[in-house]
Amino acid sequence: MRQTNFPNRKLADVALGREPADLVIREGVLLDVYSGRMIPGRSVAVSGQWIAYVGADASHTIGRNTEVIEADGRIISPGYMDTHTHLAGCWDISDFLKYAIPGGTTTFITEAEAYACALGVEGFKAFLDQIGNRPVKMFGLIPAMVTLSPATESLAISRHDVQELLKDDRVLGIGESYWQNVVLNSNGRVMEMMREALKAGKSVQGHGAGAFDRKLAAYTAAGALSCHEAITSEDVLSRLEYGYYVMVREGDVRRDLEIIIPIKDDIDLRRVILVTDGVNPDLLIKEGYLVDVVQKAVDLGVDPIHAVQMVSINPAEHFGIDHFTGGVSPGRMADILILPEEGVMSPDMVLSNGVVVAINGETKVPLPKVPHPESLYHTLKIDPISEADLHIPLPEEGPEEYVRTIDIQPGGLVTREGKAEAQPLDGQYCAAPDRDLLKVVFLERATGKGERFVGFVRGWGQKRGAVAISQCWDCSGVLAIGAEDRDLVLAVNRLIEIQGGIVLTVEGRVEMEIPFAIGGYVSEMPIEEIARNMRRFQEAMAGLGSTLENAFLTMCTLASPAIPFIRIIEKGYRRFREDDIVGV
Amino acid sequence: MRQTNFPNRKLADVALGREPADLVIREGVLLDVYSGRMIPGRSVAVSGQWIAYVGADASHTIGRNTEVIEADGRIISPGYMDTHTHLAGCWDISDFLKYAIPGGTTTFITEAEAYACALGVEGFKAFLDQIGNRPVKMFGLIPAMVTLSPATESLAISRHDVQELLKDDRVLGIGESYWQNVVLNSNGRVMEMMREALKAGKSVQGHGAGAFDRKLAAYTAAGALSCHEAITSEDVLSRLEYGYYVMVREGDVRRDLEIIIPIKDDIDLRRVILVTDGVNPDLLIKEGYLVDVVQKAVDLGVDPIHAVQMVSINPAEHFGIDHFTGGVSPGRMADILILPEEGVMSPDMVLSNGVVVAINGETKVPLPKVPHPESLYHTLKIDPISEADLHIPLPEEGPEEYVRTIDIQPGGLVTREGKAEAQPLDGQYCAAPDRDLLKVVFLERATGKGERFVGFVRGWGQKRGAVAISQCWDCSGVLAIGAEDRDLVLAVNRLIEIQGGIVLTVEGRVEMEIPFAIGGYVSEMPIEEIARNMRRFQEAMAGLGSTLENAFLTMCTLASPAIPFIRIIEKGYRRFREDDIVGV
Repeated sequence: MRQTNFPNRKLADVALGREPADLVIREGVLLDVYSGRMIPGRSVAVSGQWIAYVGADASHTIGRNTEVIEADGRIISPGYMDTHTHLAGCWDISDFLKYAIPGGTTTFITEAEAYACALGVEGFKAFLDQIGNRPVKMFGLIPAMVTLSPATESLAISRHDVQELLKDDRVLGIGESYWQNVVLNSNGRVMEMMREALKAGKSVQGHGAGAFDRKLAAYTAAGALSCHEAITSEDVLSRLEYGYYVMVREGDVRRDLEIIIPIKDDIDLRRVILVTDGVNPDLLIKEGYLVDVVQKAVDLGVDPIHAVQMVSINPAEHFGIDHFTGGVSPGRMADILILPEEGVMSPDMVLSNGVVVAINGETKVPLPKVPHPESLYHTLKIDPISEADLHIPLPEEGPEEYVRTIDIQPGGLVTREGKAEAQPLDGQYCAAPDRDLLKVVFLERATGKGERFVGFVRGWGQKRGAVAISQCWDCSGVLAIGAEDRDLVLAVNRLIEIQGGIVLTVEGRVEMEIPFAIGGYVSEMPIEEIARNMRRFQEAMAGLGSTLENAFLTMCTLASPAIPFIRIIEKGYRRFREDDIVGV
Repeated sequence: MRQTNFPNRKLADVALGREPADLVIREGVLLDVYSGRMIPGRSVAVSGQWIAYVGADASHTIGRNTEVIEADGRIISPGYMDTHTHLAGCWDISDFLKYAIPGGTTTFITEAEAYACALGVEGFKAFLDQIGNRPVKMFGLIPAMVTLSPATESLAISRHDVQELLKDDRVLGIGESYWQNVVLNSNGRVMEMMREALKAGKSVQGHGAGAFDRKLAAYTAAGALSCHEAITSEDVLSRLEYGYYVMVREGDVRRDLEIIIPIKDDIDLRRVILVTDGVNPDLLIKEGYLVDVVQKAVDLGVDPIHAVQMVSINPAEHFGIDHFTGGVSPGRMADILILPEEGVMSPDMVLSNGVVVAINGETKVPLPKVPHPESLYHTLKIDPISEADLHIPLPEEGPEEYVRTIDIQPGGLVTREGKAEAQPLDGQYCAAPDRDLLKVVFLERATGKGERFVGFVRGWGQKRGAVAISQCWDCSGVLAIGAEDRDLVLAVNRLIEIQGGIVLTVEGRVEMEIPFAIGGYVSEMPIEEIARNMRRFQEAMAGLGSTLENAFLTMCTLASPAIPFIRIIEKGYRRFREDDIVGV
């Protein structure tokens, strides 16, 4: 962002009063994130995208055409930064920003694994084009692509491409990589990516869920610089001790903000960061993104200065961008909020790159859509299947008494290996919806070879029909669960036809379909419509017997290494503790 | 430093206990600079140059050949970092390190303007070779070369060379640049260097002496990221507000540490750094470098954790090297101190890059000298002078009543313009030692053209003889002051013969000479001998009538833009307020 043409001469001249500013914010209380003070009586002069002057009196910078905004004793704060999130999935970025900007988030650093799962490096580059030219700052992280699926591994970004991408100003480093794979399983490719990122002076994002002591140390020694997987106060402390920037999540997947409350007064918070880790459309519409997290922190007793530091200068320092954003200071870009009063974190006005982008909750800049390349609309590289493809034949020596299952645990994310009484019929093991034994299918969609595995799942609850989705986390595939083979086939084949999304079939008909045709992850519908559809889907699932709170989310994670203990990929069940792949 | 071959796989394996550590420090109290806590019961495992594990029990990393050091309840601290200093002058680096290492300084980030004043980019590169391969971390900053002397300006490093140098791992950015020149006088060359450094993700060191409000804002907007010129508590606050890393000096030139005491409990200290700004040989020998500053901070009431943060993680973050040094954590280099007890900041043991480099005040590693290129021994490009070259002719219309002088103020650094009764004789203005009116000469030594100016100085005090030196700050020149022309000529000509240093002449003989033949700035004598000689020189000056506390330092600064208000260069007197050059 601070290119060689950074206008430092001009900014200096504006500060000196030799040239007029474009915009002046007059007479506010400066929230100084650097020294941790509130400084009354401060005005800010902006020239182009940049802050030229901050001080007691900016009148020397006001010319005939200078726009003057009266802060009038309100608080002048840096824009908020969400530095661990997942924006590369679900919605169109333009549509997302309409909701996120009014809450004061002016910098987004996002994972982008979905685009890489869809189309490898080509997909990631297409995502960079989505974020590169927005009225707010958006940066992407190169997906580490720690996947359980060998087919998906073929989409991993090569060392050469990583080196080239690290030179891109839109790229701030390597995205999250699950520690187990990196540290325990000797994933040389990810180790190499980490080295390249560190060598390039960029960041390495970590994912140390459940790791402590020697395993966490090993992951740290491998190069991870942040962790957003602390779920207790003790986790926060152990990660800080290892020099991590600890990103505390309060979003869609988990809400852990409260873990900092018991320790907030006893430690240096410089390496604590608040993040969303992504939100779903419903949460976005209702809560307005990161501002909700900042407000909650303040409501829980966090000093507002600390709360703002945790979403501005702390992450800016972590990502090495504090020389151009993260604070209201000369020579930084004008990413500024006017907050109504101490303790109220929702801004009256949002400036980004020197432009007023939102006032009183309304976005004030056009957010044109950026077209996706045609190739991203054809990423379900699978031929249609038939019922025969879903058969689980009995062993030649006759049926076993039990079959192996994935048992979804309460909460819907963690799974355990289970043993269910088999349901043999006509030479196959069958589903038994009456006792919650359903078929689960994973079809890889990366290679065109259509490799797949059919197993069993419990804890899903659906009594009739089938669901197929393409939004698997960390895997390029289609995942389907169903009570009946006919509905499973229909759901998968319809999903292939619409090239991604969610298809629900019941009794031989398509009951509902929600297209996510861009890479199989992103929908072209407006967010409100996505939210409405997702609610309808959840209601339909409940109507079909599912007891899960968020059936879609559960399904998304079933092939991902993010959550223990047993997952499904095209080769079979992947067991974490045993570190093996097994069949039914 | 974190090259692509960073051994992250091996470090992870050591952390996991799959491979033995090379060295383990057992059972200390970890000074955790990240969270600001003291954590008892910690052991550290080191593999090669790196820390692999930190935690409650490192016994799983101990193999047959692992060296075990018992911390035994003592404090395990990161090594100290001096990040604003002047090591590129005076002494040989090897010799310097012998004194600096036992006090626990394991990282040095130094200005290098002397080498550039001697030989431009070639000189700077020769300095990088001096620091590049030491048992401690040493980094150089590209000299901004803000000089008053047009001849010296010809040695400034070109944009192309700056771009190339910024790629060098030994280079962390652009060195200090005096704000007046950059901001007020439109020095486009330095503005461009700043942009290049920021573009390359490296640092821009500032020098905002006496600047505040709009002038300080202008300098900040130009790109300066640090300032080591705060001399009051208010200066600290105003610089922090502008996002500066504030480097508080306690060294040779100034001792300002106490300014942080009144504010230390009210502000976030994350951007406060303690530095020496360089020390002289005497101070180095007596006080042991940065450890003296850290100890003084603690003695003045600074929390030892904060004191260590101010010389470890704070500067490491500022320079973007915190991912490999600045804290005791896995994946960082093993730059570690064992401190005897809380509040005692002088280490029992110093590790650098995983090697024990000092024990109980004694350096334990060889420090071989690195030869300098032959060209650095021939940098006084001046032909010998004669008395006629020092004549200050009277105007044709007859002598003026007064001549213009540089009046050295008490303290020896600040000067003011003065007006002295002229001493006309034989068609010239002459010196009048009896009323402290001496000749001062500046001869540029960069171009070979030998341009020079002869003026007058008061406040120097010397009654007889003359002195010539080559160690002018920020200028490639020879500076001489004398009561008699004959002695002036002899001093300058002898200095040219020995190619730099200090020559004192009295009554037609060389009374004392101290050679600094490397670039005219660096002596090949051992530090003890330099210190002894400098003391002898000061005594000699006092004996000749000088009342200055440090006559050599006063002389060094007489051609530098660092200190107001009037200086001498080859073109005449350089006046700061008037921004002009004038004669006598």
